[in-house]
Amino acid sequence: MSFLRNCWYVAAWQDEIPDGGSFHRRILDEDILFARDAQGAVHAMRNRCPHRFAPLSLGERIGDVIECPYHGLRFDLDGRCVMNPQGDGHIPPNAKAQTYPVEERHMLVWIWMGAPDRADPATIPALAGLDPDRYAINRGYMHTPANYEYMTDNIMDLGHIEFLHKGLLGSEAVRRAEVDVKQDGDIVHSNRLTRNEILPPALDALYECNGAPVDRWLDVTWYPPGNMQLVVGVTGAGQPERIGRETPGAHLMTPETRDSTHYFWSNARDFRRDDAVLHAALDEGFRIAFEHQDKPMIIAQHGALDGEDFWDLHPVILESDAGAVRARRILRKLIREERETEACRR
Amino acid sequence: MSFLRNCWYVAAWQDEIPDGGSFHRRILDEDILFARDAQGAVHAMRNRCPHRFAPLSLGERIGDVIECPYHGLRFDLDGRCVMNPQGDGHIPPNAKAQTYPVEERHMLVWIWMGAPDRADPATIPALAGLDPDRYAINRGYMHTPANYEYMTDNIMDLGHIEFLHKGLLGSEAVRRAEVDVKQDGDIVHSNRLTRNEILPPALDALYECNGAPVDRWLDVTWYPPGNMQLVVGVTGAGQPERIGRETPGAHLMTPETRDSTHYFWSNARDFRRDDAVLHAALDEGFRIAFEHQDKPMIIAQHGALDGEDFWDLHPVILESDAGAVRARRILRKLIREERETEACRR
Amino acid sequence: MSFLRNCWYVAAWQDEIPDGGSFHRRILDEDILFARDAQGAVHAMRNRCPHRFAPLSLGERIGDVIECPYHGLRFDLDGRCVMNPQGDGHIPPNAKAQTYPVEERHMLVWIWMGAPDRADPATIPALAGLDPDRYAINRGYMHTPANYEYMTDNIMDLGHIEFLHKGLLGSEAVRRAEVDVKQDGDIVHSNRLTRNEILPPALDALYECNGAPVDRWLDVTWYPPGNMQLVVGVTGAGQPERIGRETPGAHLMTPETRDSTHYFWSNARDFRRDDAVLHAALDEGFRIAFEHQDKPMIIAQHGALDGEDFWDLHPVILESDAGAVRARRILRKLIREERETEACRR
Repeated sequence: MSFLRNCWYVAAWQDEIPDGGSFHRRILDEDILFARDAQGAVHAMRNRCPHRFAPLSLGERIGDVIECPYHGLRFDLDGRCVMNPQGDGHIPPNAKAQTYPVEERHMLVWIWMGAPDRADPATIPALAGLDPDRYAINRGYMHTPANYEYMTDNIMDLGHIEFLHKGLLGSEAVRRAEVDVKQDGDIVHSNRLTRNEILPPALDALYECNGAPVDRWLDVTWYPPGNMQLVVGVTGAGQPERIGRETPGAHLMTPETRDSTHYFWSNARDFRRDDAVLHAALDEGFRIAFEHQDKPMIIAQHGALDGEDFWDLHPVILESDAGAVRARRILRKLIREERETEACRR
Repeated sequence: MSFLRNCWYVAAWQDEIPDGGSFHRRILDEDILFARDAQGAVHAMRNRCPHRFAPLSLGERIGDVIECPYHGLRFDLDGRCVMNPQGDGHIPPNAKAQTYPVEERHMLVWIWMGAPDRADPATIPALAGLDPDRYAINRGYMHTPANYEYMTDNIMDLGHIEFLHKGLLGSEAVRRAEVDVKQDGDIVHSNRLTRNEILPPALDALYECNGAPVDRWLDVTWYPPGNMQLVVGVTGAGQPERIGRETPGAHLMTPETRDSTHYFWSNARDFRRDDAVLHAALDEGFRIAFEHQDKPMIIAQHGALDGEDFWDLHPVILESDAGAVRARRILRKLIREERETEACRR
Repeated sequence: MSFLRNCWYVAAWQDEIPDGGSFHRRILDEDILFARDAQGAVHAMRNRCPHRFAPLSLGERIGDVIECPYHGLRFDLDGRCVMNPQGDGHIPPNAKAQTYPVEERHMLVWIWMGAPDRADPATIPALAGLDPDRYAINRGYMHTPANYEYMTDNIMDLGHIEFLHKGLLGSEAVRRAEVDVKQDGDIVHSNRLTRNEILPPALDALYECNGAPVDRWLDVTWYPPGNMQLVVGVTGAGQPERIGRETPGAHLMTPETRDSTHYFWSNARDFRRDDAVLHAALDEGFRIAFEHQDKPMIIAQHGALDGEDFWDLHPVILESDAGAVRARRILRKLIREERETEACRR
């Protein structure tokens, strides 16, 4: 299974890319160098010199130029060789590192891995909550040695939180939730509503329910290939949503390789913004849920496949898988279409 | 080279499978979960949920049911989903984990990896010595990262004990032994008789020879695919066997993968049964012989193949290889026949 | 890409092969055992018993015979089985370990990996400087997990020393050097001359320039598949070479596997031969340059290829790559010719 290329992937949190230096990360199995120019704009290029393939990330930044650590060729941040200190100094026309369109939005750096002329920033998904002026934001990055589609499944079917995050994020009410799955073009909505739920202690504390029963909604929107918004809201049992509290979050999956994933997550609140104790407790709670509960399970699941394809194993499909399965099918269709289009172009 | 499937493999010592919990082990490259029901009977099923492939070994036992740790589906010990807590609770007919016939015999759990309807417990090999009522038994389990056929070779040609186990299990008399190899259907007997041998100290002590010369027989019976009985006996030089002492043992090889093996071994005695010092000394002696002498040699041998097939390397065949080579050829024939039969059935 | 076989590879420094014992090293992906006979001559054979493939390096030397550690077969140093202690003692005619022609020259052991009848010692390259009677010699061995052709490139294009070995071996004058590349049959000369250079401190001290400007020549001769002589000389700026000082060295690359290399290097001087402080400083300087500067760069470069072939990546070719590219092309041609010849013979 190849990757979808003509789409935006999250490459990094904006603040992972330093001023003046560089940062590199493998995305769709290509090692990519990110660097900010003097104006602060991020540029992305293949992290290997087109001459003898030394990683440019080992080189020196000299103003807005990177010097290859091996033979001293210099490249601007658009990948063009601007100086060859060797021999006659001639710069062959192919002395150019591959570059990629990048955009900074929602506190994130997005990268377009397909045909550069098709990169339209307007197609970056609108993600609620990634606005530090309005929200206090818990967020993180987690590397996981498992295929990204299993990480999408994990968010698209939150029925797992009752079992995997028992007592932390899930309760017995989750299984009785009403689930509503809708497709809107290539976007999938998977909305879950629990009624009359006593929240686990950490969530009860966050939303200040004082042990009273609540209705909780967990609304997921999936954008291909693996970017999800998750809005969680809580209101008194039977009360209207608008008088409740809502915490918009994001769960963004970028393949490092076929078998490993960059996972960027966030959870935002516009209440109790200055409560540092709450903020630290949430950091710790999410860390436990994602790193100590989801991650080992998804790694185990990935391992149990013994390298076989998900569909080849004839997975049991439950009603609760509707959202995840729809996302998988759309992605499959988009990849197939992309490959057919490429075949036509040749 | 594929595996023989329609046959019994040793999966575990009976006491490796706990009451109430579960145990898993990879056999023929499939991860298998073993669990005892309330009546104590062992069941075996593929260690992955048929829904999203989470390992059931990470789940909870609730009576005679296992709850998947990821989404909470429950399975009885025959692999059938008996409860779906998600959504409408409907259980699709394919919500069943693959199961395998198992039998408990000779202190061991045996598993049938082929067509379940062909599993006949009567074909489990009769192994002498695995009877705790009659014998004091030294036994163990050793994982070895090498192909199982090399471990069969090791037992089928005990000519190696003079060299690899010099001073511990072998003496110079081993090379002068009379070797008798016989085939009986798909069973191979490889019997070795040393005459007028001064045993190495540890064996001399075990059989209480006081340094006197003995005749020693080492009789191996191989059952496909890799199960061997090894009966060792000692009598005074020139004396009849029936007045000597005999220690029946087993050497049982189960492929974990093509390149790794589960090795179950035992050695039983019906004399000096309560001699705890002797028992501990034998434990230690076998551990040294198998873990510190055989295992590194077989790993080195496996490595020296550089991934090539044994027969493709045109191994030198000595007269002393008769038993091992016969076993290899029978196994090859059985695997070929099995594949042809399967091809016919389709 | 396969290896060139009908050629001499460096197997070891002579003093790596002990008297009496044995030594083994993987060359062109074959594990080879080296042993000296009673007369001190080196022999090479495949490091696996032709019987069951146990590594003979684990066996015992008994005079000029090696006993297999597993079943006790004995082999002379020409790989012939001379004793079979098992069973009838018959020695089958194929009971022979593969052997390889070896030669000792220039303090090195050379091995011929191709057709033995084509091994002509006269084709071992003449390497200046490897003569301990005349020179004080710094030398070493370095294992590198990268393909050997990248290590050849490294020496064939010394333009890198200004950048990778800045302040240690290279100066800014290196880029202004005159480079002269010549091909002589299948041998490539790549000669570099810097003029009016202020040497980095360590080299200034070695050649005793006292900070005065010099002319420096770095003359590389490449012999297929990966053996290079590097003669470095220094004279006062504008002075004739013959009144300067010259240090002949060798950089010899032998593939362990496609992805790892044995690197043997030397640097000789016929002046200040007894200066132990200088000698130790040179040892340290070369160690830093090769192990801490070249090695990590070549490993990074090898990694950046993501397993792809060098030419398939359409590397940028600079004028300064003339020597390295010519060597790569000659090697490619020789390998192709060798394969065609073998195809004809069959």
